[in-house]
Amino acid sequence: MKLEKLVGDRFKERPADCTIGSHALMVRGGYMKHVTNGIFSSYTVLRRITRKIENIIREEMDAIDGQEVLFPVVLPASLWEESGRYNDVGRELVKFSDRNESPLLLGMTHEEAAVHLVREYGQTYTKYPFMIYQVQTKFRDELRPRGGLIRVREFTMKDAYSFHTSQEDLDTYFMRCYRAYERIFKRVGLPQVVTVTSDSGMMGGSISHEFMQLTPIGEDSIVICSDCDYRSNIEAAESIIENDASTSEKPLEKIHTPNMKTIEDVCSFLNLPIEKSCKAVIYQKSTTGEYVVVFIRGDLDVNETKLENHLQEEVHPAIITEESGIVAGFIGPYQLSGIKILFDRSLRGINNLCCGANEIDYHYAGLNIGRDYGSIEYHDFAKAVEGGVCPQCNNHSLTISRGVEVGHIFQLGTKYTESMNMSYDDESGSSHHPIMGCYGIGVGRLAATVCEVNHDEHGPIWPASIAPWQVHLCCVRADNEQVKEFADTLYDQLQSENIEVIYDDRLVSAGIMFSDADLIGVPIRVIVSPRNMKEDCCEIITRDKSVNRKVKLDDVAVVLEEYIRART
Amino acid sequence: MKLEKLVGDRFKERPADCTIGSHALMVRGGYMKHVTNGIFSSYTVLRRITRKIENIIREEMDAIDGQEVLFPVVLPASLWEESGRYNDVGRELVKFSDRNESPLLLGMTHEEAAVHLVREYGQTYTKYPFMIYQVQTKFRDELRPRGGLIRVREFTMKDAYSFHTSQEDLDTYFMRCYRAYERIFKRVGLPQVVTVTSDSGMMGGSISHEFMQLTPIGEDSIVICSDCDYRSNIEAAESIIENDASTSEKPLEKIHTPNMKTIEDVCSFLNLPIEKSCKAVIYQKSTTGEYVVVFIRGDLDVNETKLENHLQEEVHPAIITEESGIVAGFIGPYQLSGIKILFDRSLRGINNLCCGANEIDYHYAGLNIGRDYGSIEYHDFAKAVEGGVCPQCNNHSLTISRGVEVGHIFQLGTKYTESMNMSYDDESGSSHHPIMGCYGIGVGRLAATVCEVNHDEHGPIWPASIAPWQVHLCCVRADNEQVKEFADTLYDQLQSENIEVIYDDRLVSAGIMFSDADLIGVPIRVIVSPRNMKEDCCEIITRDKSVNRKVKLDDVAVVLEEYIRART
Repeated sequence: MKLEKLVGDRFKERPADCTIGSHALMVRGGYMKHVTNGIFSSYTVLRRITRKIENIIREEMDAIDGQEVLFPVVLPASLWEESGRYNDVGRELVKFSDRNESPLLLGMTHEEAAVHLVREYGQTYTKYPFMIYQVQTKFRDELRPRGGLIRVREFTMKDAYSFHTSQEDLDTYFMRCYRAYERIFKRVGLPQVVTVTSDSGMMGGSISHEFMQLTPIGEDSIVICSDCDYRSNIEAAESIIENDASTSEKPLEKIHTPNMKTIEDVCSFLNLPIEKSCKAVIYQKSTTGEYVVVFIRGDLDVNETKLENHLQEEVHPAIITEESGIVAGFIGPYQLSGIKILFDRSLRGINNLCCGANEIDYHYAGLNIGRDYGSIEYHDFAKAVEGGVCPQCNNHSLTISRGVEVGHIFQLGTKYTESMNMSYDDESGSSHHPIMGCYGIGVGRLAATVCEVNHDEHGPIWPASIAPWQVHLCCVRADNEQVKEFADTLYDQLQSENIEVIYDDRLVSAGIMFSDADLIGVPIRVIVSPRNMKEDCCEIITRDKSVNRKVKLDDVAVVLEEYIRART
Repeated sequence: MKLEKLVGDRFKERPADCTIGSHALMVRGGYMKHVTNGIFSSYTVLRRITRKIENIIREEMDAIDGQEVLFPVVLPASLWEESGRYNDVGRELVKFSDRNESPLLLGMTHEEAAVHLVREYGQTYTKYPFMIYQVQTKFRDELRPRGGLIRVREFTMKDAYSFHTSQEDLDTYFMRCYRAYERIFKRVGLPQVVTVTSDSGMMGGSISHEFMQLTPIGEDSIVICSDCDYRSNIEAAESIIENDASTSEKPLEKIHTPNMKTIEDVCSFLNLPIEKSCKAVIYQKSTTGEYVVVFIRGDLDVNETKLENHLQEEVHPAIITEESGIVAGFIGPYQLSGIKILFDRSLRGINNLCCGANEIDYHYAGLNIGRDYGSIEYHDFAKAVEGGVCPQCNNHSLTISRGVEVGHIFQLGTKYTESMNMSYDDESGSSHHPIMGCYGIGVGRLAATVCEVNHDEHGPIWPASIAPWQVHLCCVRADNEQVKEFADTLYDQLQSENIEVIYDDRLVSAGIMFSDADLIGVPIRVIVSPRNMKEDCCEIITRDKSVNRKVKLDDVAVVLEEYIRART
C-alpha cells in the first residue's frame, strides 16, 4: 500500500508518558493509541504485526495437535462459582450484571470455559489427550498498567488447554508445548527467551514455567545461577540463608532508642551488623484487613507472593491505625500478642538479635528467639538476593536480572476438572478426573517485547517474520518523471509477485521519508532517486544496517526476491 | 486431521431448545455449545468456518482500500458521552465500573472508537478518504437472543468506518463497499442476498441498506414490490393507504357496547367494515413511563420503529394501571385528554368512524375527526401490508417475506464527527466535519445463515469457500489392512499437497461414519472400502449430491485436485 494512505500519525517528539523505549517508538510510529488507562487501539501497522504473530502461534499450536476454538469474552459467574474462583480472585476480575440481573464477568483466563466446552466430550479415555486453544481478547483490571503494551488491562491472548489421563502423558505433552513455545519465540525474533520456574498464582497447580525475555525494562525479577542452569522468577525462588550463631548467648536487654524507627538506625546505634537484626514487616489481608507481621533478617525483603501462597490469600502492605495497638517502628516478637506472627527462616540459627520492644522509643538487644519467644516454625518468605545461595548447586552464585514474561505454561493437575466435575471412564470403567495443562502467550506484549529488544534510536527493527511489510519502497523526488515511473513499475512488479510493499511516493524530503521508514521498521528499504537513477541503480538498505548496496535497476526485483527468501 | 481426534460431540437427537434447522444441526454436529443466554463457545469445526469467513471479508475490505485496525472491547464511558449515546442507547449497552470506579462499557459498535483513533490523523483534507475496519468481539445485551447464532449477545463482527470530505465521495465509496458486500456474500455461499432500505436506528444518519437473506426463519419482515425494484425492511417501509369518504357525514352517536373490547367485536355489532373503525394502540415511553396513544385504522398495525423515530425515544406496549384513568378497550379520540395522542395517516379521509367513548361499555359511531376532534396532523405509523401500495411504483403490489440481516451499511453523515469534534481543514484552510459511512457484517450469524440456506435433513452442505475441510476421507473397515494402507497413503498425499482433509479411520459402521460426515458437511467425500478396493476404486461423492462416481485408485488424487480447483 501507499504510505500516503497509511492511517496513523508519525512524529519526532518522545511522548512524555512513555517510560520505555518500545512504547515511545510505537506511539511515535503510529502503531497504537491510548484510549483509557491500560486500554489501547491498534493502528494498521501494529495490526499487521499482531496478525502475523497470531498466525505463527496458530501454526505452532496446530503442529502439536492443538485445535482452535473460541470461548466467550463474557462468562456467566456460575462457571467461576463452580471452580471456586469467583470469590477467590481479586479485583482484577471484572464482575457485572446483565439486564436480567444475571451475574456475568469478563474472562481474564478460560480454564472454566475450557472445561465447560469439553466436559461431555471427554467422558471416555479414548478421547485423550487433546488440546484446544483460542486467540481472543481478555480483560484484567490491573492495578497498575504500564509500559504501553507490556502490561495492559485489555489484551489479545493465545490460551491453550490440554487434557490428559496420566501425569506422564501431561509431562510428555508439556514438553511438546515447551518446544513449540521455543519455536514461536524464535520465529517472532526472540531467540534469547529463557524459561524460569514460576509461581502458579491464581491458576493453581504445581509446576509452571515462564518464558522470559531478559531486558532491563522487564517488570519481573529473575534469579539466575551463574554456575548451573537454575533460573526462577523471584516470586518462586527459594531463599537459602546461612547463619552462624555467636558463641555465647547474651541476656535480653531493653534499650532506649529515641526516634530510631529504622532497623539501620538501631543497628548503627547498637554497633551491630544489620544481619543481627530482626525486622518486622507488616501486611494486612486484603479480604478482612487482619494484620500479619513477618519477622525477617534485617538485610532481607519479604517476597509477597510467597507470603500470599502461605496464607492462601491476598495481602497488601499494612496501613497502621492507632486503634490497632501496633507500635509502628518498634515492633518485635517478644511479648507481642493479638496479631498473626510469622518468622522467615533467615532468622534461624542467629542469636543475640536486636528487635523492636513494642513500645515507643525502645528496642531489645540480645534476643534469642528459641529462649525468649519459644519454639516456632520458620518459613521461606525472603526474596532471593544477588550473590545468594543457589538452591540447585548450593554455590553463592545467584544473579538477578529483569525480564518480561512473554509466555507461561502451567501444569494445573485436577484443580478445575475436580471442582467442575469433569471425569472420564478408563478402560476398566472406573472414573477419574482428567489432568490439565494450560499455556498462554500475550500477543500484544510479545509485539512490544520484540520491539524493545530490536530497535535503535530511530525506530523498531522488525524481524521479517512479523514485519508489517517486507519492502519499504522510497521514491525520492516523485516529481521527477523518470524516477516516479521506475518506482511505480517496481511497486507494481513486487506486488504482482505477492511481496508486501509499503510505497512512499510523497513529495517530501528524503529526511522525512527515511525517518518515517525507520519508525515503520520494515526489513528491506529500496531507494529510487534521481542520483541513483543517473547511475542506473537503486539502493537497497536493510533496516538492521547489515546490507547497504547499490543494485542495477534491471536486477532490483531479482535481488529483492533473494533477500526476502533468505529472511523468511 | 483425524476425525477421531476432533473435539466436539455429534449426535442424532434434535435438541429441544433449537427452534431453527441450522441451529439444531450446528449443535448436533459439534459446532457450538451454549454457555449462557445468547452466549456460545465455538468448537473446532465452527472456528475453521468462521476464520475462513473472516479472511474472505478481510480480502474484500483490503480490496476497497480498507485498513485493518483493532479497537478495544471495553471502552471508557467518556467516549460515548462525547457522542451523546451513553444515555441514549437502551439496556443493550452494558455499563460497569472498574476498580477505580471509572465508568466503562462493552462496545456494541465502534463509531466513537473509530473517531477517537483518527481524530488527529484526519486534520487535513489530503488524508481523505480513508476506511478502517476491525474483526472483533462485540457484546449487546439483547432482550431476546434466539436461533442459535442468528441473534446472540456476544458475537464477532467486522465493522468498518469510512471518512470523507464530501457527500459525493461518500456516495462513491458507499457503492464500492456495497459491491464488496455483494462479493462477500457470493463468495461465502449466499448469492441470493438482496439489499433493502432500512431504518438507521441508534446509529443515526440517513441512508442505510440492509443485506438480507430471504428465509422463513428470518426475524425481519421485508416488504418487496413484485412490479418494481422496491425493497424495504418493514421498519422503514412507508405505508400508503387509500381511503374513500362516505358520501354523507353522520352525526356522532354514543352506543352501548357491553363487553365489546375488541375493534372486531364492535364493528361486527355495528355492522361496519373494520376499515371504518379507529383503533387505539397504547404505548409507554421506556424512560419516563408516559403514555402515548396511537389511533390507526382498525385493520392495520403500528410499526413501533416508526413511532420511536417520531418520538425520538424507545417505547414499549403500555401496562395500563387503574390510576392512569385510561379506559382500556374503550379508548377513542373524542374528549380524550391528559395523554399524548398521535394519529396515523390511515385515518385520513375516512368519515363516520366508530371508536371508543372513553367510558366502560360505550363506543361512538359517526366520528368525523375533522368535525369532532379538530384539525390534526397525521403521521405514518402503520406497518406495510401484503397487497399494499408500493411507495415507488404505486401499484398494489407489495409482498412481505422474512429475512435475516447478514450485513448493514449506513451513511452516518456528521453525527459522530460533529459531536466528537473531529474536523479537517480544506484547501482554503476552512474547517469542516468529515462525513462518515459505516459497514457491518456479523461473522457467526453469516455462518449460521449459510447453514440455514445450505443444508438437508442430514446436515449442513458447506460451500467449498468456507468449508471446515475440503475432503472428508472415509476409511470403511479400517481393520482391513489393504483398505487402511491405501487410505493412509491417500491421506498423507492429500495433506502434502496442502489439501485440507478430515480423515475418518475409526472402527465404526459405515452408517455412523456417513452420518458424521453429513453433519460436518465437507464438500467432497472419498470412500475407501473393501468393496471398492475389490474393484480397484474409491467412491467420490459430493455433499450436495451433484457428483457420485467411482474413480480408479490410481486416479483418485488427481481427480480430487480437479474437483477442489473447480470449487474454490
